[in-house]
Amino acid sequence: MPAFLKRLIFQVGDQASERTYTYTSVSNDGHYISLRPLIRPKDDKEREFPVEWAFAGLNTDIRVTKIDEYTVTQDFNFWIDINRYLKVPNIHQGEVHTTWKRWESECLEETGTVYPFGPDKEGVNFMELWQPLDSNRVEDVVAPIGMDNSKDRSVVLKIDDSKYEGLMIVVGKWAQGLMTKKGESSTDGINMIRSVETSTNSYKTLFSQGSNVDKFPSAFENLSKGTKVDVNGFEWEVIESTY
Amino acid sequence: MPAFLKRLIFQVGDQASERTYTYTSVSNDGHYISLRPLIRPKDDKEREFPVEWAFAGLNTDIRVTKIDEYTVTQDFNFWIDINRYLKVPNIHQGEVHTTWKRWESECLEETGTVYPFGPDKEGVNFMELWQPLDSNRVEDVVAPIGMDNSKDRSVVLKIDDSKYEGLMIVVGKWAQGLMTKKGESSTDGINMIRSVETSTNSYKTLFSQGSNVDKFPSAFENLSKGTKVDVNGFEWEVIESTY
Repeated sequence: MPAFLKRLIFQVGDQASERTYTYTSVSNDGHYISLRPLIRPKDDKEREFPVEWAFAGLNTDIRVTKIDEYTVTQDFNFWIDINRYLKVPNIHQGEVHTTWKRWESECLEETGTVYPFGPDKEGVNFMELWQPLDSNRVEDVVAPIGMDNSKDRSVVLKIDDSKYEGLMIVVGKWAQGLMTKKGESSTDGINMIRSVETSTNSYKTLFSQGSNVDKFPSAFENLSKGTKVDVNGFEWEVIESTY
Repeated sequence: MPAFLKRLIFQVGDQASERTYTYTSVSNDGHYISLRPLIRPKDDKEREFPVEWAFAGLNTDIRVTKIDEYTVTQDFNFWIDINRYLKVPNIHQGEVHTTWKRWESECLEETGTVYPFGPDKEGVNFMELWQPLDSNRVEDVVAPIGMDNSKDRSVVLKIDDSKYEGLMIVVGKWAQGLMTKKGESSTDGINMIRSVETSTNSYKTLFSQGSNVDKFPSAFENLSKGTKVDVNGFEWEVIESTY
Protein backbone atom coordinates (compact mmCIF):
# COMPACT_ATOMS: atom_id res chain seq x y z
CA MET A 1 0.00 0.00 0.00
CA PRO A 2 1.40 3.45 -0.82
CA ALA A 3 2.33 5.67 2.09
CA PHE A 4 3.38 9.27 2.48
CA LEU A 5 4.90 9.96 5.87
CA LYS A 6 6.11 13.13 7.54
CA ARG A 7 8.67 12.83 10.30
CA LEU A 8 7.71 14.48 13.60
CA ILE A 9 10.64 13.53 15.79
CA PHE A 10 14.19 12.39 15.47
CA GLN A 11 15.50 11.17 18.82
CA VAL A 12 19.07 9.97 19.38
CA GLY A 13 19.67 8.64 22.84
CA ASP A 14 17.65 11.00 25.06
CA GLN A 15 17.80 13.98 22.73
CA ALA A 16 14.63 14.52 20.71
CA SER A 17 14.13 17.23 18.13
CA GLU A 18 13.09 17.88 14.55
CA ARG A 19 15.27 20.14 12.40
CA THR A 20 14.10 18.94 9.00
CA TYR A 21 11.20 18.79 6.58
CA THR A 22 11.45 15.03 6.21
CA TYR A 23 8.99 13.11 4.07
CA THR A 24 9.25 9.45 3.20
CA SER A 25 7.40 8.10 0.17
CA VAL A 26 6.67 4.40 -0.04
CA SER A 27 5.30 3.07 -3.31
CA ASN A 28 2.58 0.46 -3.66
CA ASP A 29 5.21 -2.18 -4.47
CA GLY A 30 7.45 -1.14 -1.56
CA HIS A 31 10.09 1.04 -3.19
CA TYR A 32 11.02 3.95 -0.93
CA ILE A 33 12.69 7.33 -0.74
CA SER A 34 13.33 9.71 2.13
CA LEU A 35 14.53 13.31 1.71
CA ARG A 36 15.54 15.22 4.82
CA PRO A 37 16.33 18.88 4.09
CA LEU A 38 17.06 21.19 7.01
CA ILE A 39 14.44 23.79 7.94
CA ARG A 40 16.92 26.40 9.21
CA PRO A 41 20.54 25.71 8.29
CA LYS A 42 22.60 27.22 11.11
CA ASP A 43 26.17 27.46 9.84
CA ASP A 44 28.14 27.69 6.59
CA LYS A 45 28.45 23.92 6.24
CA GLU A 46 24.69 23.49 6.60
CA ARG A 47 23.92 26.39 4.29
CA GLU A 48 26.19 24.94 1.61
CA PHE A 49 24.44 21.56 1.69
CA PRO A 50 21.21 21.98 3.72
CA VAL A 51 20.35 18.31 4.06
CA GLU A 52 20.46 16.05 7.10
CA TRP A 53 20.29 12.89 5.02
CA ALA A 54 18.62 11.28 2.01
CA PHE A 55 18.30 7.73 0.79
CA ALA A 56 16.32 5.60 -1.61
CA GLY A 57 15.84 1.91 -2.18
CA LEU A 58 14.04 -0.71 -4.18
CA ASN A 59 11.72 -3.25 -2.62
CA THR A 60 14.57 -5.73 -2.96
CA ASP A 61 16.58 -3.52 -0.61
CA ILE A 62 14.21 -3.95 2.32
CA ARG A 63 12.83 -6.91 4.25
CA VAL A 64 9.55 -6.37 6.10
CA THR A 65 8.46 -8.91 8.72
CA LYS A 66 5.15 -8.81 10.53
CA ILE A 67 5.48 -9.23 14.29
CA ASP A 68 1.88 -8.60 15.35
CA GLU A 69 -1.14 -6.55 14.32
CA TYR A 70 0.62 -3.30 15.20
CA THR A 71 4.28 -4.07 14.67
CA VAL A 72 6.62 -4.91 11.80
CA THR A 73 10.38 -5.06 11.55
CA GLN A 74 12.05 -3.47 8.55
CA ASP A 75 15.61 -4.28 7.61
CA PHE A 76 17.04 -1.74 5.20
CA ASN A 77 19.95 -1.95 2.81
CA PHE A 78 19.76 1.35 0.98
CA TRP A 79 20.48 1.38 -2.73
CA ILE A 80 21.40 5.08 -2.64
CA ASP A 81 22.56 6.64 0.62
CA ILE A 82 24.07 10.10 0.45
CA ASN A 83 26.09 9.64 3.63
CA ARG A 84 27.70 6.53 2.19
CA TYR A 85 28.12 8.36 -1.13
CA LEU A 86 29.84 11.26 0.61
CA LYS A 87 31.99 8.85 2.64
CA VAL A 88 30.87 10.59 5.84
CA PRO A 89 33.02 9.22 8.68
CA ASN A 90 31.50 7.13 11.46
CA ILE A 91 28.31 6.08 9.76
CA HIS A 92 26.54 2.76 10.09
CA GLN A 93 27.52 0.28 7.37
CA GLY A 94 25.26 -2.36 5.91
CA GLU A 95 21.81 -3.43 6.93
CA VAL A 96 19.86 -1.33 9.44
CA HIS A 97 17.36 -3.18 11.63
CA THR A 98 14.30 -1.21 12.68
CA THR A 99 11.01 -1.89 14.44
CA TRP A 100 7.85 -0.02 13.45
CA LYS A 101 4.97 0.18 15.87
CA ARG A 102 1.62 1.69 14.88
CA TRP A 103 0.12 3.76 17.68
CA GLU A 104 -3.61 4.23 18.16
CA SER A 105 -3.14 7.68 16.65
CA GLU A 106 -1.77 5.82 13.57
CA CYS A 107 1.54 7.55 13.90
CA LEU A 108 4.38 5.09 13.38
CA GLU A 109 7.13 4.80 15.96
CA GLU A 110 10.36 3.58 14.38
CA THR A 111 13.09 2.40 16.73
CA GLY A 112 16.45 0.90 16.04
CA THR A 113 20.13 0.89 16.80
CA VAL A 114 22.92 2.00 14.52
CA TYR A 115 26.59 1.17 14.90
CA PRO A 116 28.54 4.18 13.64
CA PHE A 117 31.78 2.93 15.20
CA GLY A 118 31.50 -0.59 13.80
CA PRO A 119 29.27 -3.62 14.36
CA ASP A 120 31.27 -4.82 17.38
CA LYS A 121 31.31 -1.41 19.08
CA GLU A 122 28.64 0.28 21.15
CA GLY A 123 25.43 1.08 19.29
CA VAL A 124 23.35 4.24 19.32
CA ASN A 125 19.60 3.93 19.86
CA PHE A 126 17.29 6.13 17.85
CA MET A 127 13.58 6.75 17.54
CA GLU A 128 11.69 8.48 14.75
CA LEU A 129 7.99 9.21 14.78
CA TRP A 130 6.10 9.34 11.48
CA GLN A 131 2.76 10.98 10.71
CA PRO A 132 0.83 9.50 7.78
CA LEU A 133 -0.40 12.33 5.54
CA ASP A 134 -3.14 12.34 2.92
CA SER A 135 -0.97 12.20 -0.20
CA ASN A 136 -3.81 13.48 -2.36
CA ARG A 137 -3.66 16.91 -0.72
CA VAL A 138 -1.15 19.63 -1.55
CA GLU A 139 -0.70 20.65 2.09
CA ASP A 140 0.29 18.67 5.16
CA VAL A 141 -3.11 17.20 5.89
CA VAL A 142 -3.07 14.51 8.55
CA ALA A 143 -4.57 11.26 7.22
CA PRO A 144 -7.78 10.65 9.18
CA ILE A 145 -7.72 7.49 11.28
CA GLY A 146 -8.75 4.50 9.20
CA MET A 147 -8.19 6.28 5.90
CA ASP A 148 -7.93 3.91 2.94
CA ASN A 149 -4.95 5.01 0.87
CA SER A 150 -4.65 1.77 -1.08
CA LYS A 151 -5.92 3.48 -4.25
CA ASP A 152 -3.48 6.38 -4.17
CA ARG A 153 -1.45 6.90 -7.30
CA SER A 154 1.92 5.16 -7.14
CA VAL A 155 4.47 5.64 -9.91
CA VAL A 156 8.18 4.81 -9.70
CA LEU A 157 10.90 5.71 -12.18
CA LYS A 158 14.47 4.53 -12.08
CA ILE A 159 17.69 5.47 -13.80
CA ASP A 160 20.78 3.28 -13.65
CA ASP A 161 23.11 3.89 -16.58
CA SER A 162 26.86 4.27 -16.90
CA LYS A 163 26.83 7.69 -15.27
CA TYR A 164 23.87 8.02 -12.91
CA GLU A 165 21.68 6.10 -10.55
CA GLY A 166 18.44 7.50 -9.27
CA LEU A 167 14.92 6.84 -8.12
CA MET A 168 11.80 8.97 -8.35
CA ILE A 169 8.63 8.04 -6.50
CA VAL A 170 5.23 9.64 -6.93
CA VAL A 171 2.63 8.90 -4.27
CA GLY A 172 -0.65 10.73 -4.71
CA LYS A 173 0.23 14.33 -5.55
CA TRP A 174 3.75 14.17 -4.09
CA ALA A 175 6.92 13.44 -6.06
CA GLN A 176 10.36 12.88 -4.59
CA GLY A 177 13.54 12.06 -6.47
CA LEU A 178 17.17 11.30 -5.58
CA MET A 179 19.93 10.80 -8.15
CA THR A 180 23.70 10.52 -7.74
CA LYS A 181 26.51 10.64 -10.27
CA LYS A 182 28.57 7.48 -10.27
CA GLY A 183 32.26 7.59 -9.46
CA GLU A 184 32.07 10.79 -7.42
CA SER A 185 31.69 11.36 -3.72
CA SER A 186 31.00 15.05 -3.32
CA THR A 187 27.81 17.01 -2.89
CA ASP A 188 28.22 18.11 -6.55
CA GLY A 189 27.14 14.64 -7.58
CA ILE A 190 23.90 14.66 -5.58
CA ASN A 191 20.54 15.74 -6.98
CA MET A 192 17.24 15.85 -5.15
CA ILE A 193 13.77 17.13 -5.83
CA ARG A 194 10.49 17.30 -3.94
CA SER A 195 7.43 18.65 -5.68
CA VAL A 196 3.66 18.61 -5.33
CA GLU A 197 1.07 18.56 -8.10
CA THR A 198 -1.01 21.73 -7.98
CA SER A 199 -2.98 20.84 -11.12
CA THR A 200 -2.72 17.98 -13.64
CA ASN A 201 0.93 17.67 -14.66
CA SER A 202 1.77 21.01 -13.07
CA TYR A 203 4.17 20.64 -10.18
CA LYS A 204 5.41 23.14 -7.64
CA THR A 205 8.96 22.45 -6.47
CA LEU A 206 9.20 22.59 -2.68
CA PHE A 207 12.84 21.60 -2.40
CA SER A 208 15.64 20.87 -4.82
CA GLN A 209 19.36 20.40 -4.65
CA GLY A 210 22.02 19.87 -7.30
CA SER A 211 22.89 20.93 -10.84
CA ASN A 212 20.88 18.20 -12.58
CA VAL A 213 17.47 18.86 -11.11
CA ASP A 214 16.12 19.40 -14.63
CA LYS A 215 16.93 15.74 -15.40
CA PHE A 216 14.21 14.43 -13.10
CA PRO A 217 10.90 13.48 -14.71
CA SER A 218 8.26 16.15 -14.17
CA ALA A 219 5.07 14.61 -15.61
CA PHE A 220 3.59 11.32 -14.50
CA GLU A 221 0.14 11.05 -16.05
CA ASN A 222 -0.60 7.79 -17.83
CA LEU A 223 2.91 6.40 -17.52
CA SER A 224 2.67 2.64 -17.77
CA LYS A 225 5.20 0.19 -16.40
CA GLY A 226 8.10 -0.41 -18.77
CA THR A 227 7.82 2.98 -20.47
CA LYS A 228 11.11 4.78 -21.09
CA VAL A 229 11.05 8.53 -20.48
CA ASP A 230 13.72 10.84 -21.86
CA VAL A 231 14.29 13.91 -19.69
CA ASN A 232 16.83 16.31 -21.19
CA GLY A 233 18.97 13.40 -22.33
CA PHE A 234 18.52 11.24 -19.22
CA GLU A 235 16.60 8.02 -19.78
CA TRP A 236 14.34 6.93 -16.93
CA GLU A 237 12.33 3.71 -16.86
CA VAL A 238 8.94 3.33 -15.25
CA ILE A 239 9.37 0.31 -12.94
CA GLU A 240 5.97 0.59 -11.25
CA SER A 241 2.74 2.32 -12.08
CA THR A 242 -0.89 2.37 -11.07
CA TYR A 243 -1.78 3.60 -14.59
CA MET B 1 -1.91 34.89 20.26
CA PRO B 2 -4.52 32.17 19.74
CA ALA B 3 -3.24 28.63 19.28
CA PHE B 4 -4.81 25.34 18.35
CA LEU B 5 -2.55 22.41 19.16
CA LYS B 6 -2.84 18.70 18.53
CA ARG B 7 -0.92 16.34 20.76
CA LEU B 8 1.37 13.91 18.96
CA ILE B 9 3.02 12.12 21.88
CA PHE B 10 2.46 11.50 25.53
CA GLN B 11 5.58 10.09 27.14
CA VAL B 12 5.79 9.05 30.78
CA GLY B 13 9.24 7.99 31.83
CA ASP B 14 10.54 6.06 28.80
CA GLN B 15 7.14 4.97 27.50
CA ALA B 16 5.87 7.07 24.59
CA SER B 17 2.55 6.65 22.88
CA GLU B 18 -0.60 8.48 21.81
CA ARG B 19 -3.97 6.93 22.60
CA THR B 20 -6.07 10.08 22.36
CA TYR B 21 -7.41 12.75 20.04
CA THR B 22 -6.07 15.57 22.19
CA TYR B 23 -6.46 19.18 21.14
CA THR B 24 -5.61 22.17 23.27
CA SER B 25 -7.17 25.53 22.49
CA VAL B 26 -5.48 28.68 23.75
CA SER B 27 -7.38 31.94 23.39
CA ASN B 28 -5.85 35.26 22.41
CA ASP B 29 -5.94 36.40 26.05
CA GLY B 30 -4.41 33.15 27.32
CA HIS B 31 -7.42 31.17 28.53
CA TYR B 32 -7.03 27.48 27.76
CA ILE B 33 -8.81 24.16 27.48
CA SER B 34 -7.58 20.65 26.71
CA LEU B 35 -9.87 17.70 25.91
CA ARG B 36 -8.31 14.25 25.68
CA PRO B 37 -10.79 11.60 24.53
CA LEU B 38 -9.50 8.10 23.85
CA ILE B 39 -9.28 6.93 20.25
CA ARG B 40 -9.95 3.26 20.98
CA PRO B 41 -11.27 2.54 24.49
CA LYS B 42 -10.00 -0.90 25.37
CA ASP B 43 -12.03 -2.10 28.36
CA ASP B 44 -15.37 -1.51 30.07
CA LYS B 45 -14.03 1.27 32.26
CA GLU B 46 -12.64 3.13 29.26
CA ARG B 47 -15.79 2.56 27.21
CA GLU B 48 -17.94 3.95 30.00
CA PHE B 49 -15.92 7.17 30.21
CA PRO B 50 -13.64 7.29 27.16
CA VAL B 51 -11.47 10.20 28.27
CA GLU B 52 -7.85 10.26 29.38
CA TRP B 53 -8.14 13.69 30.94
CA ALA B 54 -9.60 17.15 30.45
CA PHE B 55 -8.95 20.51 32.03
CA ALA B 56 -9.60 24.20 31.53
CA GLY B 57 -8.28 27.40 33.01
CA LEU B 58 -8.38 31.14 32.86
CA ASN B 59 -5.35 33.26 32.09
CA THR B 60 -5.17 33.96 35.82
CA ASP B 61 -4.63 30.21 36.33
CA ILE B 62 -1.37 30.11 34.39
CA ARG B 63 1.97 31.92 34.63
CA VAL B 64 4.06 32.08 31.47
CA THR B 65 7.72 33.09 31.72
CA LYS B 66 10.00 33.59 28.74
CA ILE B 67 13.33 31.82 29.08
CA ASP B 68 14.78 32.48 25.64
CA GLU B 69 13.66 32.90 22.03
CA TYR B 70 12.52 29.27 21.85
CA THR B 71 11.57 28.45 25.41
CA VAL B 72 8.96 29.45 27.97
CA THR B 73 7.96 27.97 31.29
CA GLN B 74 4.27 27.56 32.04
CA ASP B 75 3.01 27.02 35.56
CA PHE B 76 -0.56 25.75 35.59
CA ASN B 77 -3.18 25.79 38.30
CA PHE B 78 -6.22 24.41 36.53
CA TRP B 79 -9.58 25.95 37.29
CA ILE B 80 -11.41 22.79 36.19
CA ASP B 81 -9.58 19.45 36.26
CA ILE B 82 -11.66 16.32 35.81
CA ASN B 83 -9.18 14.11 37.65
CA ARG B 84 -9.36 16.39 40.66
CA TYR B 85 -13.16 16.55 40.24
CA LEU B 86 -13.39 12.76 40.18
CA LYS B 87 -11.02 12.50 43.14
CA VAL B 88 -8.81 10.11 41.16
CA PRO B 89 -6.25 8.68 43.60
CA ASN B 90 -2.56 9.48 43.24
CA ILE B 91 -2.79 12.58 41.11
CA HIS B 92 -0.60 15.63 41.27
CA GLN B 93 -2.03 18.38 43.48
CA GLY B 94 -1.55 22.09 42.95
CA GLU B 95 0.62 23.92 40.47
CA VAL B 96 2.26 22.00 37.62
CA HIS B 97 5.54 23.37 36.32
CA THR B 98 6.25 22.79 32.65
CA THR B 99 8.83 23.89 30.10
CA TRP B 100 7.85 24.48 26.47
CA LYS B 101 10.50 24.41 23.79
CA ARG B 102 9.72 25.33 20.20
CA TRP B 103 11.54 23.10 17.73
CA GLU B 104 12.59 24.21 14.26
CA SER B 105 9.59 22.25 12.97
CA GLU B 106 7.49 24.55 15.22
CA CYS B 107 6.22 21.60 17.18
CA LEU B 108 6.24 22.36 20.88
CA GLU B 109 7.97 20.01 23.29
CA GLU B 110 6.43 20.24 26.75
CA THR B 111 8.35 18.65 29.60
CA GLY B 112 7.67 18.55 33.30
CA THR B 113 7.49 16.50 36.43
CA VAL B 114 4.38 15.57 38.35
CA TYR B 115 4.24 14.31 41.92
CA PRO B 116 1.34 11.87 42.12
CA PHE B 117 2.52 10.50 45.45
CA GLY B 118 2.96 13.89 47.08
CA PRO B 119 5.33 16.83 46.69
CA ASP B 120 8.02 15.27 48.87
CA LYS B 121 7.94 11.88 47.10
CA GLU B 122 9.56 10.82 43.87
CA GLY B 123 8.33 12.65 40.77
CA VAL B 124 7.38 11.29 37.37
CA ASN B 125 8.83 12.95 34.29
CA PHE B 126 6.64 13.45 31.27
CA MET B 127 6.94 14.83 27.77
CA GLU B 128 4.20 15.86 25.39
CA LEU B 129 4.75 17.01 21.83
CA TRP B 130 2.29 19.46 20.28
CA GLN B 131 1.64 20.19 16.61
CA PRO B 132 0.23 23.63 15.81
CA LEU B 133 -2.70 23.27 13.41
CA ASP B 134 -4.32 25.85 11.17
CA SER B 135 -7.44 26.56 13.23
CA ASN B 136 -9.22 28.01 10.22
CA ARG B 137 -9.44 24.61 8.55
CA VAL B 138 -11.96 21.91 9.35
CA GLU B 139 -9.41 19.11 9.06
CA ASP B 140 -6.09 18.52 10.79
CA VAL B 141 -4.01 20.77 8.58
CA VAL B 142 -0.50 21.36 9.88
CA ALA B 143 0.18 25.08 10.30
CA PRO B 144 2.89 26.00 7.77
CA ILE B 145 6.12 27.20 9.34
CA GLY B 146 5.95 30.92 10.06
CA MET B 147 2.17 31.06 9.77
CA ASP B 148 0.64 34.16 11.34
CA ASN B 149 -2.32 33.06 13.43
CA SER B 150 -2.59 36.28 15.42
CA LYS B 151 -5.79 37.24 13.57
CA ASP B 152 -7.62 33.95 14.20
CA ARG B 153 -11.01 34.26 15.81
CA SER B 154 -10.84 33.90 19.59
CA VAL B 155 -14.03 33.80 21.64
CA VAL B 156 -14.31 32.63 25.25
CA LEU B 157 -17.49 32.00 27.24
CA LYS B 158 -17.67 31.16 30.91
CA ILE B 159 -20.32 29.90 33.27
CA ASP B 160 -19.91 30.00 37.04
CA ASP B 161 -23.23 30.00 38.85
CA SER B 162 -24.54 28.18 41.89
CA LYS B 163 -24.69 24.85 40.06
CA TYR B 164 -22.15 24.75 37.25
CA GLU B 165 -18.72 25.95 36.25
CA GLY B 166 -17.54 25.76 32.69
CA LEU B 167 -15.43 27.26 29.94
CA MET B 168 -15.91 27.24 26.19
CA ILE B 169 -13.15 28.41 23.86
CA VAL B 170 -13.47 29.02 20.14
CA VAL B 171 -10.24 29.40 18.17
CA GLY B 172 -10.72 29.78 14.44
CA LYS B 173 -13.29 27.18 13.40
CA TRP B 174 -12.77 24.94 16.45
CA ALA B 175 -14.85 25.04 19.63
CA GLN B 176 -14.12 23.12 22.80
CA GLY B 177 -16.10 23.23 26.04
CA LEU B 178 -15.81 21.69 29.50
CA MET B 179 -18.42 22.10 32.25
CA THR B 180 -18.81 20.37 35.62
CA LYS B 181 -21.68 20.30 38.09
CA LYS B 182 -20.72 21.68 41.46
CA GLY B 183 -20.93 19.48 44.54
CA GLU B 184 -20.57 16.20 42.67
CA SER B 185 -17.58 14.05 41.90
CA SER B 186 -18.76 11.46 39.39
CA THR B 187 -18.56 11.27 35.62
CA ASP B 188 -22.29 12.15 35.57
CA GLY B 189 -21.34 15.72 36.46
CA ILE B 190 -18.89 16.16 33.59
CA ASN B 191 -19.81 17.62 30.21
CA MET B 192 -17.54 18.11 27.23
CA ILE B 193 -17.92 19.11 23.63
CA ARG B 194 -15.64 19.52 20.64
CA SER B 195 -17.02 20.82 17.39
CA VAL B 196 -15.85 22.39 14.18
CA GLU B 197 -17.61 25.02 12.07
CA THR B 198 -18.47 23.59 8.67
CA SER B 199 -20.29 26.74 7.55
CA THR B 200 -21.22 29.98 9.32
CA ASN B 201 -22.79 29.08 12.68
CA SER B 202 -23.15 25.45 11.64
CA TYR B 203 -21.04 23.15 13.77
CA LYS B 204 -20.30 19.47 13.46
CA THR B 205 -19.80 17.75 16.82
CA LEU B 206 -16.67 15.61 16.79
CA PHE B 207 -16.81 14.52 20.41
CA SER B 208 -19.19 15.01 23.29
CA GLN B 209 -19.68 13.57 26.73
CA GLY B 210 -22.34 14.10 29.39
CA SER B 211 -26.04 14.73 29.74
CA ASN B 212 -25.85 18.53 29.49
CA VAL B 213 -24.09 18.86 26.16
CA ASP B 214 -27.07 20.88 24.88
CA LYS B 215 -26.24 23.57 27.44
CA PHE B 216 -23.02 24.59 25.69
CA PRO B 217 -23.21 27.62 23.38
CA SER B 218 -23.36 26.59 19.74
CA ALA B 219 -23.17 29.91 17.85
CA PHE B 220 -20.38 32.43 18.21
CA GLU B 221 -20.78 34.99 15.45
CA ASN B 222 -20.63 38.61 16.54
CA LEU B 223 -20.56 37.86 20.24
CA SER B 224 -18.99 40.83 21.96
CA LYS B 225 -17.27 40.77 25.33
CA GLY B 226 -19.68 41.09 28.21
CA THR B 227 -22.63 39.62 26.32
CA LYS B 228 -24.75 37.12 28.26
CA VAL B 229 -25.93 34.11 26.28
CA ASP B 230 -28.80 31.91 27.45
CA VAL B 231 -28.46 28.30 26.31
CA ASN B 232 -31.43 26.16 27.34
CA GLY B 233 -31.57 27.89 30.69
CA PHE B 234 -27.80 28.07 31.27
CA GLU B 235 -26.37 31.59 31.29
CA TRP B 236 -22.90 31.95 29.76
CA GLU B 237 -20.90 35.18 29.67
CA VAL B 238 -18.57 36.18 26.88
CA ILE B 239 -15.32 37.01 28.69
CA GLU B 240 -13.20 37.49 25.57
CA SER B 241 -13.98 38.13 21.94
CA THR B 242 -12.28 39.25 18.76
CA TYR B 243 -15.67 40.56 17.50
